[in-house]
Amino acid sequence: MSSESRSASSPVAPDDIEEGVVLRPKFDAHGLVTVVATDARTGDVLMVAFMNDEALDRTIQTGEAWYYSRSRKRLWKKGETSGHIQKVLEMRVDCDQDAVWIKVDQTGGAACHTGRHSCFYRRIDRGGDGAPVLIETDAERKFDPDKVYGK
Amino acid sequence: MSSESRSASSPVAPDDIEEGVVLRPKFDAHGLVTVVATDARTGDVLMVAFMNDEALDRTIQTGEAWYYSRSRKRLWKKGETSGHIQKVLEMRVDCDQDAVWIKVDQTGGAACHTGRHSCFYRRIDRGGDGAPVLIETDAERKFDPDKVYGK
Repeated sequence: MSSESRSASSPVAPDDIEEGVVLRPKFDAHGLVTVVATDARTGDVLMVAFMNDEALDRTIQTGEAWYYSRSRKRLWKKGETSGHIQKVLEMRVDCDQDAVWIKVDQTGGAACHTGRHSCFYRRIDRGGDGAPVLIETDAERKFDPDKVYGK
Repeated sequence: MSSESRSASSPVAPDDIEEGVVLRPKFDAHGLVTVVATDARTGDVLMVAFMNDEALDRTIQTGEAWYYSRSRKRLWKKGETSGHIQKVLEMRVDCDQDAVWIKVDQTGGAACHTGRHSCFYRRIDRGGDGAPVLIETDAERKFDPDKVYGK
């Protein structure tokens, strides 16, 4: 059924999860939705993280990415320590509203705490014996994490 | 510290989570890792889903995407009903190995069960009052879900 025929035959409720216009995030048992941040320019996946209700709201209202850290159990603004903030150019929600996709302009060009552009700096290949092996890919460091995070 | 200087000063263990070459997925309490599938051609995020150990292994070994359905509590091959399989062109793991990124060639051009190219067919904007509102974006249906899934 096309959007057109659906609209004509059965009007969609504004708060319908899949077809509506109301944001109704489906938070998990910990109050979180999964967030994928991609580089708005290249399309590279930079990181996968989480937002709670407040992080989602702050991101929508400020246009800069806020997340919820499961390990530190607190809200954090991306770049609050490193200065490498993420300016959100577009934000989308998925069909069942348990995942959010943000296209960002990554300040400093590095989203990963290891100093790389993306957290996904290793390709999964199959070795000679068929077993998986990780191969560094786009793994050049844009900054020295020891200096930036003062370890 | 660059990869080079790190290698020179402190050799990395092959099974080091962040810097090693061994795949050691960090499964959550339910035995799952988060998976982001992007369109290898456009970079669009198609869907966010989950893999358990077996889905991950089958995907690596076959080059086609397998997932684990949390709602149906079973392994599923993407496209097993619809025929819209995902051919995996590249597979990556993130720094802490709890997320996987696959770049896919999506058969039929539609990854979403609603018939759209991507599950992310609604943009989150701010309405006149500042409250979030969802706007359909790239929401054209590539197939009729009622026909494909026989609802």
